This record gives sequence, structure tokens and C-alpha cells, in this order.
Amino acid sequence: MIIVMNFAATPEEVAGVVAKVTESGLKAHVSEGKECTIIGVIGEKSLIARFDGEALPGVEKVLAVTESYKLASRKFKVTDTIIDVSGVKIGGENIVVMAGPCAVESREQLIESAYAVKKGGAKFLRGGAYKPRTSPYAFQGLEEKGLKMLAEAGEITGLKIVTEVVDAVSLPLVNEYVDMFQIGARNMQNFQLLKAVGRLTKPVLLKRGLSATLDEWLNAAEYILSEGNQNVIMCERGIRTFETYTRNTLDLSAVAALKNMTHLPVVVDPSHGTGRWKLVSPMARAAVAAGADGLMIEVHPNPADALSDGPQSLNPENFEVMMQEVAAIAEAIGRKLK
Amino acid sequence: MIIVMNFAATPEEVAGVVAKVTESGLKAHVSEGKECTIIGVIGEKSLIARFDGEALPGVEKVLAVTESYKLASRKFKVTDTIIDVSGVKIGGENIVVMAGPCAVESREQLIESAYAVKKGGAKFLRGGAYKPRTSPYAFQGLEEKGLKMLAEAGEITGLKIVTEVVDAVSLPLVNEYVDMFQIGARNMQNFQLLKAVGRLTKPVLLKRGLSATLDEWLNAAEYILSEGNQNVIMCERGIRTFETYTRNTLDLSAVAALKNMTHLPVVVDPSHGTGRWKLVSPMARAAVAAGADGLMIEVHPNPADALSDGPQSLNPENFEVMMQEVAAIAEAIGRKLK
Amino acid sequence: MIIVMNFAATPEEVAGVVAKVTESGLKAHVSEGKECTIIGVIGEKSLIARFDGEALPGVEKVLAVTESYKLASRKFKVTDTIIDVSGVKIGGENIVVMAGPCAVESREQLIESAYAVKKGGAKFLRGGAYKPRTSPYAFQGLEEKGLKMLAEAGEITGLKIVTEVVDAVSLPLVNEYVDMFQIGARNMQNFQLLKAVGRLTKPVLLKRGLSATLDEWLNAAEYILSEGNQNVIMCERGIRTFETYTRNTLDLSAVAALKNMTHLPVVVDPSHGTGRWKLVSPMARAAVAAGADGLMIEVHPNPADALSDGPQSLNPENFEVMMQEVAAIAEAIGRKLK
Amino acid sequence: MIIVMNFAATPEEVAGVVAKVTESGLKAHVSEGKECTIIGVIGEKSLIARFDGEALPGVEKVLAVTESYKLASRKFKVTDTIIDVSGVKIGGENIVVMAGPCAVESREQLIESAYAVKKGGAKFLRGGAYKPRTSPYAFQGLEEKGLKMLAEAGEITGLKIVTEVVDAVSLPLVNEYVDMFQIGARNMQNFQLLKAVGRLTKPVLLKRGLSATLDEWLNAAEYILSEGNQNVIMCERGIRTFETYTRNTLDLSAVAALKNMTHLPVVVDPSHGTGRWKLVSPMARAAVAAGADGLMIEVHPNPADALSDGPQSLNPENFEVMMQEVAAIAEAIGRKLK
Repeated sequence: MIIVMNFAATPEEVAGVVAKVTESGLKAHVSEGKECTIIGVIGEKSLIARFDGEALPGVEKVLAVTESYKLASRKFKVTDTIIDVSGVKIGGENIVVMAGPCAVESREQLIESAYAVKKGGAKFLRGGAYKPRTSPYAFQGLEEKGLKMLAEAGEITGLKIVTEVVDAVSLPLVNEYVDMFQIGARNMQNFQLLKAVGRLTKPVLLKRGLSATLDEWLNAAEYILSEGNQNVIMCERGIRTFETYTRNTLDLSAVAALKNMTHLPVVVDPSHGTGRWKLVSPMARAAVAAGADGLMIEVHPNPADALSDGPQSLNPENFEVMMQEVAAIAEAIGRKLK
Repeated sequence: MIIVMNFAATPEEVAGVVAKVTESGLKAHVSEGKECTIIGVIGEKSLIARFDGEALPGVEKVLAVTESYKLASRKFKVTDTIIDVSGVKIGGENIVVMAGPCAVESREQLIESAYAVKKGGAKFLRGGAYKPRTSPYAFQGLEEKGLKMLAEAGEITGLKIVTEVVDAVSLPLVNEYVDMFQIGARNMQNFQLLKAVGRLTKPVLLKRGLSATLDEWLNAAEYILSEGNQNVIMCERGIRTFETYTRNTLDLSAVAALKNMTHLPVVVDPSHGTGRWKLVSPMARAAVAAGADGLMIEVHPNPADALSDGPQSLNPENFEVMMQEVAAIAEAIGRKLK
Repeated sequence: MIIVMNFAATPEEVAGVVAKVTESGLKAHVSEGKECTIIGVIGEKSLIARFDGEALPGVEKVLAVTESYKLASRKFKVTDTIIDVSGVKIGGENIVVMAGPCAVESREQLIESAYAVKKGGAKFLRGGAYKPRTSPYAFQGLEEKGLKMLAEAGEITGLKIVTEVVDAVSLPLVNEYVDMFQIGARNMQNFQLLKAVGRLTKPVLLKRGLSATLDEWLNAAEYILSEGNQNVIMCERGIRTFETYTRNTLDLSAVAALKNMTHLPVVVDPSHGTGRWKLVSPMARAAVAAGADGLMIEVHPNPADALSDGPQSLNPENFEVMMQEVAAIAEAIGRKLK
Repeated sequence: MIIVMNFAATPEEVAGVVAKVTESGLKAHVSEGKECTIIGVIGEKSLIARFDGEALPGVEKVLAVTESYKLASRKFKVTDTIIDVSGVKIGGENIVVMAGPCAVESREQLIESAYAVKKGGAKFLRGGAYKPRTSPYAFQGLEEKGLKMLAEAGEITGLKIVTEVVDAVSLPLVNEYVDMFQIGARNMQNFQLLKAVGRLTKPVLLKRGLSATLDEWLNAAEYILSEGNQNVIMCERGIRTFETYTRNTLDLSAVAALKNMTHLPVVVDPSHGTGRWKLVSPMARAAVAAGADGLMIEVHPNPADALSDGPQSLNPENFEVMMQEVAAIAEAIGRKLK
């Protein structure tokens, strides 16, 4: 951490900052510049995280030098983490596809979707039983009934199940039915929920918040990791920008950046990322080309009838085409899709 | 709702959309344009909220004509809502100030802060017992101990207590100690939490999410209102933009806009909104000039010692100066601060 | 400037950076931290601006410690700059209002607008003769004819004239007719244009770019100042964010921030900032409460007939009401509107 | 265009809007809804572009149904446009690479760069002779000297030359030396410059503005096309968001979206898009996978010595590796890189 003093800071103010740093168990390193004095702060990451120097008299600003997360950092663990989800590995040579409807709507719709995505080559069935919706009047999900349908569809098809968990109260119930938890974008900084899944052992797919920086996202992962659960998969799903043509702006540079910053696997969701089914296939190809370890794709047997997110869902035929296109890209970079 | 058909849509596709609209209990109104056909969809707000036409064949896009919230809308209730919080009214002629430290750190710090803000003219003491922090290694709050200190400080000084509640699990405990719940920015779309406070009767201060549109924010209020709790106060606290000089960009036009859109009271938090104490006083003046019904201000007896958010906290002297400046603005627009 | 070395940087890489710094006429100050080495770079602002260390081997990142502008900085000139525009002072005790139609449409419309805004208390008539429009098919302005009408309206009413200049080619012509140049948001980083107005002496109203940081905006001012023209007025007009209810997000914290960062006067345009006439008056009040030195307001004798920006224009009656409201705020902070 | 009336609009106000629409040579189509009346406006695109109904009494909002550009639209021209730049085709089966240093610094640096990028497989040499820089004290480019070096490097190597043009004044000079003009992000809405290059015949590479929507970007292209120059290539180079790890957020969904919206070729610049050379190669692969017709890459013989943008430049070795990786992706989607 570097503390930049105000250009008019007095020697007493500099001494005051140094004293405060020392009191906190950290070391201060003073450099007097032409325009201002800067103070390097050195010590344990957790002590630095607790030190808040910006309000000290004479301080202009405080600059972070190193990231505040530790367990999630590539510095802490150099080799790629491969996560085993009920026998399916995420993070290695293979690229894993998770597909299915946005929401579980009925047993028929779900089973039909499951067979379709399995046929296309997906290893995971996705589908929401609890749906966080902007309006309280929109469809909110089938809850436990939906979880049971997911589990059944998983048994019939052999697909692994990933579904969103929305609070600690329903977590034990969800835990009974699924192979992997999903934390949604709106809950990325729901720290109580992060801690709760951190105390379990099942893998967690952590979606990026709508306006989360990479640093905040990795700190959210750190909440889970620091509670003991080491099985975290990052999922880019688009960020909020001024552009309105797409539902969000899919940030594929985040994939390449995370590969430098962290050892955790990275998955991309081009369906929410773009909000338009015509853009899903090109963005799925691009995600894999950028280095993603997996894809999460909305597939609905009949998108026009979907109770949510129809416009961004592929039908089974388009999903198959997409899988073929992505397989070619995977091969071009020395990986495999199926 | 207006459905815009693709320029190449066939008459069959138009007929298909009309059929789907009718099936859903809504009415369709077709206009054939030079470049495309548009279909007006008319009916009950809740039916429209459940209708998702974008994935129907031939559809180019769907445009919302009216807002999806109802109880929060100025159309539903024309007169300003005034909310009584343990005897203090929010929303009328008076401008209410809530002040105190970001986090409850100790009994001494809190009592000292409470006396200071009461002396300055605040009616509410604010202070976090549960602190959502970006890093898991940062100070997380004193939890129940903090709640007890808040209640004690309230009793001693007569100030009303507002504090953040972070999940449904701790909600009953928080309910025992406080006069008003605060929902933080990161939880604005934690719909389980919104429903939980919606089932209680205590007033709720609902902070705007970091990247929430006004429409999403009012829909979050609608979650609380539709569960039965009519006592919701909106709190603007800055949105996330590209600008890094300020911690967030305080959106004061939201105050004026909400006054047109909703009957609910609006409060502004310039401390989080700017992240710099030097900007708090000018932004507090501006907020009141724009029509805010109240202010939430971070005050710390010694900001340099604060465990969180020191740089944006006023000390008691600066708080008093701010209150005088704001009082002059309040008077200029025919309102009162104290 | 601070150079943060990669955690794996070798001593040779550190020495390489130090050598490069020294070669550039700057001084290096090395601190070895627990996780990484940091190098403070000290020297002349212009040498630092030309030094680009991020690509040197072993460098993790480069952090700016001091701002890159100089003449615009409050450190360079501590006292507020007051700019005399043909006898009207901007930046002192008085708050100056510039008002008029978005575009000059006809002699009648302009003269009528000029009398109306003068009656309301404006000192400047604004109006576009050259209109930068998103679509090439939208109304592009009356050009020289419009300039002549502006000059005539100024002569008749005694109002000073401010109008947008869009390129160096038309600059000499505009220079003949107006009292102050306006640089529009889209041209804030049109550096050729900035240099061209910098070589003249007439005051320049510099609007903030749609996505310009405060630092970039002050550097744009520095382009003008460094060419010799010291008469620059900053104009906040809203930034682009994800919010779509308002046309832009008016950033009033920029007003308070600029008052700390620069000695130049600051004006606010709530018409473009919000895009909705109902929000203009509250935002004008808030701007003055935040410390603005002036306001730029769109007024049209008949907004419904305006060829551009009608929805954000006040009619003369609303303008008068706004002026009374703003006058009360000005008085409350010890300033005067008229 | 659809005009949504206020829920309290009177029949007279509706009639007023209809009258105004008719006067403007357009047709009105009224639908009375449950909550409000909507008016469809039908007619010529250019008449609609000039019609501004939002300020009419009783109007709530105006919604655009069709895009305002015409010549740039895929509806206007269904087949992909292929642009011939001095014999090199952009937009067909081949993917074209433009590479070179950010700025022309010296004859030696440029010639060395030119040979390096030619060896790697680039068809175009890029390099700035006029450099728009945030600070007036940063390196501003060699201007005409730089143009001459570019022309010489082109002659020696057979590479085509693309360079940025910053204003209409220097345009005739630039026209003498280059094969293709580049309009930079900061000038995307410098409409005078767009019109000026529109009156010439040489191809124009139009970079996306830092905060430009796809619609605004295509309208900027329309400015060039409507002046007569049909040779426009769109270049995505990252947009400004809240994320600070990358210099900009490269929006690859824009590539896929543009392929639906327009017939013009699309090129991607991952160097400016990310600002970090380690992310250039993955993003180049992803761009081609998403459907880009070309790449613009910063290559410098010695990035650490670059006068600008060193951190995002590849050295010749990394450039060759990137080209091999991209070639494999190109092949996977049935295209060719060289």
C-alpha cells in the first residue's frame, strides 16, 4: 500500500501517518518527492486490509499495490485448479458445457431440454428453481418442486445438475438435489450467502456481479475459499454498460485477465451476456478462443413459450450447430469439447 | 407493451403473435407501418409482466410503455407518503438527518458520536453492526454486540436507530433493537431479504444498487410494498460509473426524477455517494436543493481512527457547519431542517 | 509516479527500470516491500508525462501520484479565477445565467427567446448555429446566417453571445460574431480545435465529454491554457451511464471536486444533463447549492415547435420560476443571481 | 416512431400530436390503451429524423422503432461489402491484419517494425503521425515527417498504409501519403471530419467512440456514406466502463451484432481494447472467432522504448506467435489469415 501525502502536508502530518502505520503492526517507508511525500506501507496482507489511512491528516490518497485476495490468487497457487463435480472435471483440457432452460417450468419441458442438451454434448443441465426477477409480479420459479424435477432429469440422463441458490435458508434443501451451486450476479456480494456455501464442500459457480470489478469478483471468491470450500468456478456473464442493444456487455477480456490473476477455472455465459440468441453462438466461439474452460448456455425446447429469457435461448437445433462450431474452435487451440 | 415486428416478418408471424397475446388474456392492436408492423399489447399490469414476447417468430423487439411497478407509482397514489418512524416523520415539510459512524466500533465511539450528531441536529443515529465488506479480511462488524450498543445510544440520547440488515436469518434479532431497517446497495436485489422485511411493519430505508436503474430500484421497493409493508424510503447513494476521483457518482437527478415517479420519500447519502468528506457538505446542500426529504451522513468523532470509511466521514465540527449550511438551503425552498 | 514491480521481478529488472528513469532525466527511489519492490519516480511534470514505464521488463503497473495538468491546477494558482466576458464577470460572487434555444432556427424565434431570457435575468444568450447531430439527416444548423442572427439579438438586447464552434475552419468566422466560444462535449478531446481556440483570446466554455474523467477534462483545459488563452470556463453537462430515464447523469459532485482541483470557474447545464424539462429547475437549484458559478439553460418560446432538444427546454414562464427559485438558493449561500 | 402519451393526456392533446405529425408529412396511427394512448408515426426516414415530438403537450415519451441510418443498414444492402484498399480486400474470406507501432517515432523504428509485421503476415502497416494525447505535454507525433516515413516504409515493404487523420486541415496532406484513413475514437463524432473524409474516395477505418452506442457508431458511418464515400470499415477498440484492470472493455459482442445490423466490414483492435499486451493474443483469437474481418495490432520492435502505448504493444516474436494462433482459429471457421 502506498500513501500519497497532500502537497501541503507538514512534517508533523507525515510523522503522524508513520506512527499510525507502525501502531498497526506494519512498516512505513518514506520517500520525499518534488511535489509530495509518499509512504510505502509494508506487512501482512490481512493487516493491510484492515488499515484505513485515507482519513489521516495530510493524506491525499491511498493506492493499493497488491490485491487483497490471497487464496484465489495465482501467486498463492501457480498451477491451474481442476475441479471435480460428481466425476466431471472443470478446468483441464476439456471444455465443459452446461445447458438448459432459464427456469424449470414443468417436468415435460425439463426432461425434453435435458435430452436435447445431452444429445448436443452438454455435461451439465442448468435450470432455475428459484428465479430472482426484477418485478415481483414476474414468474418466481417452482422452488422445491423444480429442484425435484432437476434431480430426476439428472438421474434419467446422467447429466450433472447446477442451479441457483438464493439464500442461506433454502441452501440445505438445494444441497440435497444438486451437483453444483450457482451464485447469481445479483448475489455476488451477498456475503452471508457466500460464507454459507463456503462452509459446504460442493462446487460453487460464482457469477460476476452486474457492475463488479475483477478485484471485487475475486474477493467474493475469497469469501468462499476462506471458509474452507476450495471448489469455486468463476462465470463471466456480462457487465452493465451504456450500450442497450445487448442486454449486457460480455467482457471476454475478463477471461484472459482471470487466467493471469487466478488459478480458478473460468466459464462464460453468452446467453445472459448478450440477451440475444443470434449472438450466442459467435460469443460462445469467442469465449473458448479466449481461453474459457466452459460455457453456460440457455436452451429451451421452444423458446417462444419460455416463461423467462426466451429471446436469448437457443432451440435444440441451434444448440447443436453451436456445439459443432465451438468444437472446431476448441480443437484449433488444442482442447476438446466433448 | 409494444411489439415491433422484424421488417421481414410474414403475415403468419404477425398472426402468431396476436394469437399468443390473446391466449395470455391480453388484447393486441396491430398497426402496419412503412418499414414494419407494430403490435400494441393492452391489459392488466401483472399479465403484461408475465408475457414474454421477444422470442416469438418474427419479433424484432419489445418496448415497455408503462412501468412494471404499481404500489410504488405516483399514478397509484398521487399524494406524498409521509412515514412515521417511532414518532419522527419522514417525507413532510421537515428534512430529517440520519448521522453517525459507518460502523459501530465500541460503546465509547458510538455514544460520543450519538451526542455529537444529536447536538448537530440529527434525528437518527446510523451505524453498522453487520458490515458487508469487499474483502473477507476487513472488519466485519460487531453484530449483536453492536446492535445492543445502538439501542443503548438511542435510549440515552433519544435518537432513533437505523442500521443495515444483511439477511433474513439475522432479521428477527435486528428487529428487536432498531427503529428502521436499512437495505444496503449490494442487497437491493436480494429479493428474499426484500420479501422478509416486507412481511414486517418497521420502515425500510432502501438504498439504490450500485448499477440499478430507477425502474429496478422502484421494482425492489415494490417487492417490499407488495408483501404488505408500506413504509419504504428510497435512499440515493451514488452509482458506479467510469469516474474514479469520487467513490461513486452521486445521481441527484434521481431525487427529482423519483419525485415524479413515486410517492415515497427520498433520502440522499452524500458520504458514500462521494467517498470524500470535502464533498459531503456541498452535496448535502445540493441534495436538499434538489428536493430530498432527508440526508444520511457519516460522522465519526475521529475519522482518522475509523475502522471503515474514515475518508468520507465528517468530524463533529464539520458536521455542525454542514447542518447550518443545509438549514439555510432548506429555508430557501420553504422547508425546515430541525 | 510510482512504478510497482511484478512480485517475481529480478534485481536486474529493477536495475533496468532505475537506469531508464535516470536516462529520462528523472530520479528513482527504490523501496523493497514484502511482496514487491516499488520505485518512486521524481522530477519535472513534463518529463514525467513523457515517461512511459509500463512496458519495461518486470513492471506490474504504474501509478500516477500527481495530476498531469499544471496551469489548470489549484496548486499552480490558489485563488479563484474570474473571467471577464465583454464586461460580464464569471467566477465571482455573482452567478451568471446563459440561456436560449438549443438551435438558432429563425430571426423571430431567436429575438423572442432573447427578450424572454433577458427578462428572466440571463446575462448571456446561447444558441447553436452549428449543430453536431447524431444523424446526418437531422437539422444541422443555420451556420453563418445563424451567427448573424445571434450577433443581432445580442446588439438589440445587450446580452452577451455564446455559441458552439465545431472546427478550426469555421473558427475565424465564429470569432467575428460572438463573445465566448463553446466547445461541445463531443469535441472535448478534439485537440486540434482546443489548440486553435487556445491561440485566440476570447473566453472558452469547455463542456465535459460524455465519458471524460475529471482528469481528462482538466487536461483538455490545459491544452487551451498552454497555448496562451487563460480564459477557460468548465461546463458540466452530464456523463453517460447505464441509466436511461435521464438523457445523461448530471454529475454535480464534479462541481465540488473541481472547486478543489482547479481555480477555473465552473458552470452547469442541467438541460442536456437531464434531457427532461421537469428536472431542469431542481437540478439548477442543486447546481448552485453545490457551488456552481453559472448555469446554462435551454429556453424556447415554444418548446413543442423546437427543431432540436424541445423536451429539455423551458418555456419563458418556467424559466422565470426557475430563476426565482435559484435566486433564493444563491442568497442562502451568500451569492447573487442577478 | 411511437409516441406514448401521458396517462393523464386529454383528447385535445392527442389531437394536437396527431395534427403535428400530419403537418410534418407523416402519418399518425392512434391506439387507445388501458393506461395510456399510443400513436404510431409512419413515413420517410429523413422526415422522422427531423420530427421531435417529445416536447408536445401530453407526451410521455417517444420510442424509436427503426434505426435512423439507412446506407449503413443491412436492410438497405443485404450482401457483405468487400472493400478494396489498394489491392487488398477487406471483408471477404480472408482476415486482414494491420500492425505496427502506436506512433511513428523514427525512420529506423518504423522500417524495423514494418519488416517485422510483414514477416508475421500483416498486410497493412499502422502507425500514428498525428497523436491525440490526453496531456498537451505528452508526445504529439512527427506529423508530415511521420507521414513521409510511413509512405517510404510502405514502398519498401509493399505493405499498405493506414494512419489516423485528426482534422480537415491536415487531411489533404495525409491523403497524399496513405492507403486508408483512420478516424480515432475521440473523433468518432467529429462530424466535420466525417463529412470531409466522406467527400474523398479513400477507404476509412472508423473507430468506435469511447462511449458510443452501436446506433451512434453506425450513424457516424452514415455521415461518411451519405457524402458519397462508400468505403467504410468499422473498428471496435473497447468501450469505457467501470473496470480499471483493462484500459477499456473490448466489446466483442459488437462484432456479432454489427454483422446483423450492417453490411460493412468489422475489424477489432485488441491492443487499445485491453491496454495489456498479455491479453492481446487471446482477444485477437476471440475476435476472429466472433466473426471479425480483420485485426489491428500494436507491434513495436522494443515495446519498453516506445514513446506511447508500450504496455499494450507486442514485440515481433509475440506477434508471430499470435499470428499462428489466430491462423488456426481462422481455419476452424473456414477463413484464412494470410
